Amino acid sequence: MGPRSGKGRQFAIGVDYGTNSVRALVVDLKDGREVASKVFNYPSGEAGILLDPKDPNLARQNPADYIAGFYASVRGAVAAARRLPGFKPENVVGIGVDTTGSTPLPVDADGTPLALKPAFRKNLAAQAWLWKDHTGHAEAAEITEKARSHPDGYLLKCGGTYSSEWYWSKLLHCKRTAPKVFAAAASWVELADFVPAFITGNTNPATLPRGICAAGHKAMYHDQWGGLPGTVFLESLDPDLPRVANCYARPALPSDRKAGNLTAETAKKVGLPAGLPVAVGAFDAHMGAVGAGIKPGTLVKIIGTSTCDMLVSPMDGRLADIPGVCGIVPGSIVPGMYGLEAGQSAVGDIFNWFVKQLAPAAYAAKGDAHVNLTRQAEKLKPGESGLVALDWNNGNRTILVDPLLSGLLVGQTLHTNAPEIYRALVEATAFGALTIIKRFEEYGMAVGEVVNCGGIAEKNPFVMQIYADVCNRPMKISRSAQTCALGAAIFGAVVGGAYPDVPAAQQAMTGVKPKVYRPRQPAADVYAELYRIYRQLHDAFGTAGGTSPLPSVMKDLIALRSRVRQEA
Amino acid sequence: MGPRSGKGRQFAIGVDYGTNSVRALVVDLKDGREVASKVFNYPSGEAGILLDPKDPNLARQNPADYIAGFYASVRGAVAAARRLPGFKPENVVGIGVDTTGSTPLPVDADGTPLALKPAFRKNLAAQAWLWKDHTGHAEAAEITEKARSHPDGYLLKCGGTYSSEWYWSKLLHCKRTAPKVFAAAASWVELADFVPAFITGNTNPATLPRGICAAGHKAMYHDQWGGLPGTVFLESLDPDLPRVANCYARPALPSDRKAGNLTAETAKKVGLPAGLPVAVGAFDAHMGAVGAGIKPGTLVKIIGTSTCDMLVSPMDGRLADIPGVCGIVPGSIVPGMYGLEAGQSAVGDIFNWFVKQLAPAAYAAKGDAHVNLTRQAEKLKPGESGLVALDWNNGNRTILVDPLLSGLLVGQTLHTNAPEIYRALVEATAFGALTIIKRFEEYGMAVGEVVNCGGIAEKNPFVMQIYADVCNRPMKISRSAQTCALGAAIFGAVVGGAYPDVPAAQQAMTGVKPKVYRPRQPAADVYAELYRIYRQLHDAFGTAGGTSPLPSVMKDLIALRSRVRQEA
Repeated sequence: MGPRSGKGRQFAIGVDYGTNSVRALVVDLKDGREVASKVFNYPSGEAGILLDPKDPNLARQNPADYIAGFYASVRGAVAAARRLPGFKPENVVGIGVDTTGSTPLPVDADGTPLALKPAFRKNLAAQAWLWKDHTGHAEAAEITEKARSHPDGYLLKCGGTYSSEWYWSKLLHCKRTAPKVFAAAASWVELADFVPAFITGNTNPATLPRGICAAGHKAMYHDQWGGLPGTVFLESLDPDLPRVANCYARPALPSDRKAGNLTAETAKKVGLPAGLPVAVGAFDAHMGAVGAGIKPGTLVKIIGTSTCDMLVSPMDGRLADIPGVCGIVPGSIVPGMYGLEAGQSAVGDIFNWFVKQLAPAAYAAKGDAHVNLTRQAEKLKPGESGLVALDWNNGNRTILVDPLLSGLLVGQTLHTNAPEIYRALVEATAFGALTIIKRFEEYGMAVGEVVNCGGIAEKNPFVMQIYADVCNRPMKISRSAQTCALGAAIFGAVVGGAYPDVPAAQQAMTGVKPKVYRPRQPAADVYAELYRIYRQLHDAFGTAGGTSPLPSVMKDLIALRSRVRQEA
Repeated sequence: MGPRSGKGRQFAIGVDYGTNSVRALVVDLKDGREVASKVFNYPSGEAGILLDPKDPNLARQNPADYIAGFYASVRGAVAAARRLPGFKPENVVGIGVDTTGSTPLPVDADGTPLALKPAFRKNLAAQAWLWKDHTGHAEAAEITEKARSHPDGYLLKCGGTYSSEWYWSKLLHCKRTAPKVFAAAASWVELADFVPAFITGNTNPATLPRGICAAGHKAMYHDQWGGLPGTVFLESLDPDLPRVANCYARPALPSDRKAGNLTAETAKKVGLPAGLPVAVGAFDAHMGAVGAGIKPGTLVKIIGTSTCDMLVSPMDGRLADIPGVCGIVPGSIVPGMYGLEAGQSAVGDIFNWFVKQLAPAAYAAKGDAHVNLTRQAEKLKPGESGLVALDWNNGNRTILVDPLLSGLLVGQTLHTNAPEIYRALVEATAFGALTIIKRFEEYGMAVGEVVNCGGIAEKNPFVMQIYADVCNRPMKISRSAQTCALGAAIFGAVVGGAYPDVPAAQQAMTGVKPKVYRPRQPAADVYAELYRIYRQLHDAFGTAGGTSPLPSVMKDLIALRSRVRQEA
């Protein structure tokens, strides 16, 4: 099934704003094939991130990098595509944009980022607050406490805990620590909304389209209570919050809606026709799930330094609120369906941590330590090391929603070696993945198929086979290695009219690789026993309540660490 | 206060049988000064240990090495002493011997080790069964079960659990797996008894003096039930056990009693006068405690790959049985006092494990990894890493008496580094040390002073300072670096009549170094909090009972590991 038009080959462009760079991808609408791409590395700060040596929680970005990045990446991709037969800029039907998030930036009444104005250029608080900025952790705790007791149940759609990574934590922290910046901001715009607004010339923050993905997952936006949280609630956090909340167009929109049309100025800079439809923006993981072929019953796992676990559900029945699932938002992934987002706070990051901090010379001296450790680790049988780990070195996102949890390793003897620990860490992340699947299923969400994408899914058969064995189900791999940009291009195709809706475009443009990792039965049986032990540790250290003092162990250690470091 | 005689300088010789070598030490009786010494490395097997590649639990030694080792080490030490002014062999008053244990060897009716007879020379079961031979673990469990329910309370004096390292576990395992060896043995003699018997020519197993140290700590010998366990009990284990148990001279003796006099043949071989008094033998840790100056209220810690924690108590009051303390035996350390032995299954072994298996190239590539890690680890403040570990990589001897416990590390983040973990492991062993002190105190044994000896105490100020801070009491270091051999020499001095008793000899011949590690108060306060967390983990994973499933975690992992490895 190809696109609607019979005019020969047609294309869409997906623009994927990552943490360190932005990638533009030109995609053939017939089969989703990637025709050309161009990456632009953000020039500011360290690998695109503005840091504060005094505060490890701070991570900001220069909005000028986003603008320069759009021009350079799209221009580069289009230029590269032009060198190929069959591509013409006039055959591009639309553009989609995905970004990291929650990454809000303060703008003035015209929609100009404060960071681009001379008075604020060097002010860190006036920049974009990158998703992994955790400066607002105290504010997150306050929001959680106040929202938890609110009769509207603001937290029920986001797992029961509001994160320091999210919109209101960042705004509130800015108000309290950089009040002049906050006062100068007419509104705060998510990067996912800023880029479509900027390139379509609709930057007025009171009217620019806000995407339901960012609004619903990060700003507690829900139709049930008429959009953003109510004025009384926001005032209880800070009297000045309602002012910026009121400068916010409603309703928030799914990404099969057009944000606007490419301005002549931007079109000229990138070598595309003016007026090209641009889709409402959304987050990378959400569009990535679309690019991986998400549909009801298909769990898409994006596995990299951390994971996003995405699921959609038809809106014909009432969906239960699922404790510990980060977000449940109508239309945030596939328009017309509930979008559900879960995730693990660290996966590849844990393997990288082990290699960086603990890989002995025998594995690290020559070649890639991951490869060397894997070579030994894959010879081990499940259960043979006698080790079990918890995958909480960066806290636990789903299902415990607790950033103050930490890692644990148990079972060491005097013979335990590095490949055994490396494998135990891989297994721990697989147990974490299984815990998410089980949580979905406990609340009636069938998981009939798992499609994996991201760097680890692409490149690491050792990890993927363990995931298949631990989860005792086949692990499929997305055909595209650039699912986020492909997903963005799919939305470009839909707003460009090439397909009637997202599922139709996915049907043509997405797929999985022939190689499927299938569970091996003896291994799966042993892992079922190991998972029972993992779960005992998980519940003992992660779940408050009961008479055991263990749930306080990790938090007591973190509190002590903070106190000791402050006294230093 | 010097020795009794006014004849000028006098000497005693201590002979210390370690795991890989034997050391003879010539000591000046006036002040305990070491005059000369000689080490002999056992030539058989790997560093003196006979191994079985098919069974990692097996560790045996060739009795011929013990005999050759006595000749070579004593001859060498005497020859070296003769080169010094003031030494004459005629001025040696006596010899003491300490050895590893429980290290029993099967002998025939003449007392000849079966291993020295042609029929058994190559039979591993006929050799000496080294202390760390764990082949009898199933037998140990059976003995524990049967002894636990016995009305005489055989286990009350040895912590409530019979170890696979001990006498009866080894005999019973031999009976079941090498019945011909067992049938050929008239008796089994501990190495600590064998050496004095051999060099004094009193090798008849029915009459050779048995030391109370080995008998009481390892063979469940106690006056309360008339010596070794009763015939009915031993028969319940195996009908043939009473036969060897009856070939065993009673009462077992403390080491201020003479085992005999040096034979002319041996005297000639080593260059000493014939007829020299030889003390009853005892274990290295017990004589080491004497050499470190043990007395009521003074805990002696011998810190090496594992620890022995020794205490004595006057016999004027009734001493409570102390759960988890490996042994409480009258006269086993200082004659006339209760000797109490506790210990940690792994201390230096844990640090060595980390360095061998997990030290990254940055620390291991140049110089000594221990030194490099220590250099960074000592810069950390207590609590700063956010880590706590359990020191159970080799099980827990005191106070849990459970070899099937394993290591645990909690608190890891994505920034945790190797020196932080190294320090956490050192701290874990210090918490283990404190747990032993607390257990003694809970049962009314005052610990007024701690004297440390062994390699780590001698050479590692980083570890010793942490022990002082964690235990919140000064850590003193024994003046002698060879406390075991010095302790043996003290017993040689006493049986030689140079001092009226052991305390008098200790008063003159032992002492501590000027350098004392004193607790630093801010550190001690933080460690009090960390110890509370350590203790929560200790009790949760180590103590059965209650509703928590955690005490089964480590054992379930070990059971699974065993099963998987067997299936391989």
